[in-house]
Amino acid sequence: MKRRDFLSGAAAAGAVAAASSFPRPALAQGTRELKMVTAWPKNFPGLGTAAERLGQRIARMTGGRFTVKVFAAGELVPAFEAFDAVSSGTAEMYHGSEYYWQGKSKAFNFFSNVPFGLTGPEINAWLYHGGGQALWDELAAGFKVKGFAASNTGVQMGGWYNREINTLEDFKGLKIRMPGLGGEVMRRLGAAVVNLPGGEIFPALQSGAIDATEWVGPWNDLAFGFYKVAKYYYSPGFHEPGATISAGFNLDFWNSLSAEDKAIMEAACGAENDYGLAEFNARNADALRTLVNDHKVQHRLFPDEAIRQIGKLSGDVVREVAAADPMTTKVYESFLAFRKKMVEWGRLADQAYFNARALPFEY
Amino acid sequence: MKRRDFLSGAAAAGAVAAASSFPRPALAQGTRELKMVTAWPKNFPGLGTAAERLGQRIARMTGGRFTVKVFAAGELVPAFEAFDAVSSGTAEMYHGSEYYWQGKSKAFNFFSNVPFGLTGPEINAWLYHGGGQALWDELAAGFKVKGFAASNTGVQMGGWYNREINTLEDFKGLKIRMPGLGGEVMRRLGAAVVNLPGGEIFPALQSGAIDATEWVGPWNDLAFGFYKVAKYYYSPGFHEPGATISAGFNLDFWNSLSAEDKAIMEAACGAENDYGLAEFNARNADALRTLVNDHKVQHRLFPDEAIRQIGKLSGDVVREVAAADPMTTKVYESFLAFRKKMVEWGRLADQAYFNARALPFEY
Repeated sequence: MKRRDFLSGAAAAGAVAAASSFPRPALAQGTRELKMVTAWPKNFPGLGTAAERLGQRIARMTGGRFTVKVFAAGELVPAFEAFDAVSSGTAEMYHGSEYYWQGKSKAFNFFSNVPFGLTGPEINAWLYHGGGQALWDELAAGFKVKGFAASNTGVQMGGWYNREINTLEDFKGLKIRMPGLGGEVMRRLGAAVVNLPGGEIFPALQSGAIDATEWVGPWNDLAFGFYKVAKYYYSPGFHEPGATISAGFNLDFWNSLSAEDKAIMEAACGAENDYGLAEFNARNADALRTLVNDHKVQHRLFPDEAIRQIGKLSGDVVREVAAADPMTTKVYESFLAFRKKMVEWGRLADQAYFNARALPFEY
Repeated sequence: MKRRDFLSGAAAAGAVAAASSFPRPALAQGTRELKMVTAWPKNFPGLGTAAERLGQRIARMTGGRFTVKVFAAGELVPAFEAFDAVSSGTAEMYHGSEYYWQGKSKAFNFFSNVPFGLTGPEINAWLYHGGGQALWDELAAGFKVKGFAASNTGVQMGGWYNREINTLEDFKGLKIRMPGLGGEVMRRLGAAVVNLPGGEIFPALQSGAIDATEWVGPWNDLAFGFYKVAKYYYSPGFHEPGATISAGFNLDFWNSLSAEDKAIMEAACGAENDYGLAEFNARNADALRTLVNDHKVQHRLFPDEAIRQIGKLSGDVVREVAAADPMTTKVYESFLAFRKKMVEWGRLADQAYFNARALPFEY
């Protein structure tokens, strides 16, 4: 899922006011209401709901010294302008995903995720213990923003297909809706890539205008009813193996906070990062069962031959993105070196364990 | 790694004082120092350090209204008595892992982990979104404790072996140091299972008194130098595929907290849960590289035939544990149903992605 999905129907109202300065809050000062602009429709499962939850958590943790008013995409500013609104000081906070701001710098892609990149827990390892957060801070400070990981979608699905993929040839001419860098990989495989906003995907799949579409994972996909108009559910979602959802603060506001309130805001995001990935995994597992048991959805894995070519093309596309400017190159080099280590460790750890647990035995 | 490892050298001083009652803290009250008793040696990597970090985080988030004094195992009470100390009110908090309290109820095992159980992120999904935390609260309340997940070791390694394991026969007579439920699985495979405290493992492996040992993962294992006296490093660590590290509060103290302070303590633990797993993954990847590149350690995967039998025996052992009492059975049934869903979802998601990413392609 990409930012374009939320454009449709979002008010384009240019409600961006001039930058305001933030008074330093004090314990005795009473309540201050923060504006949180988001890239999500109101209460969109796992994303809009996570934004509301983060706001409530901040209010509880500060004993109401801060409350947070959450704006759905289009309510105060359109989805894409959430970053600008925080950068300029129109709002104190945003909730979105960093690749939505790639128009500002391609480097932001790496703080959401890139095709064949890191899983959610691996992104956290890079951010907290591999230099990722320091690079993010450096990048975002140029826009007067301070960002934190605040949830993760977990491994996404590869999409809904009305054609089986048995060889690389089967991608040729495939009409698929897939935005962003994943879409570019598909284009290089010979697919006819189209971008459609969320609401137009179902009829396009139904009419045969498209053969396939990606979305998120079982939880979000079930709600859209794609199982009614597509035969096969493919995995893995190589294009988004765990997209970080982020909260960003206006840097002047952030700097005006006491050490106590900084620690509270940071931990609120960290706790939500933990809680949100857990929610996606739990709800995806429930929804998958509904899809398979009630709706008889057929799961398919992309064949190894296709994966190897997709993997190579993903590496090419990401490398080309990285050449955009020196800061993007710097972020890419850190990401790439960390990814290499995670592939080595993952082979002995998570991969070895998942494969072992999936062997046939009674438990 | 199990609680027994830390007994050696820990002072057995019975410093358990009578239960005290906790005054209700107020904003105007100034600073209160909390005692945190731990199951770890001082600054033990990833565990003792995480306890210190959690204490500092609480102090920062409360603006110093609370400070936390961390006691290493044996300083105030021995490692195993951390739970009792908090239950009785001698200390406000502990930092440990719930299977250390299985003498109180076998049900505590499930809130650390059990052989062939859930990974770290999956345990979080169970706790936060699958009913796990509510069961933990019910169980712990009987001991006047409230517990939270506060870190995770991630997938552990299977151990250091001086014999190659090619068939099930190779476990027969294998002298292995492996405590807990994993050790019981080994015993049923025909191994001669011994328990040794941490400091005695190295010489036992060196002298041939034992053929194999488990410990944690590359980060902690490297520090112990096992690579000097063992030939093969096996994975996956089926016996601990992600052990939850927990923080527990005395329930009277917990109930005395304001809603604000409860939210702060909970988020401090949640943020540490996120941060700690990330740390284990990052540091394990670094240490693995040192083990392989500098010390030429040879990695082996347990063969599929062995895994299937280990998996079946793990299920048997866990089921027998579950029969201990009605509460343990109730926790087990929730865990088992959730595990089944995670295996289904993991096959399409994390497992599919890890396997795809490990295929040979240039990135």
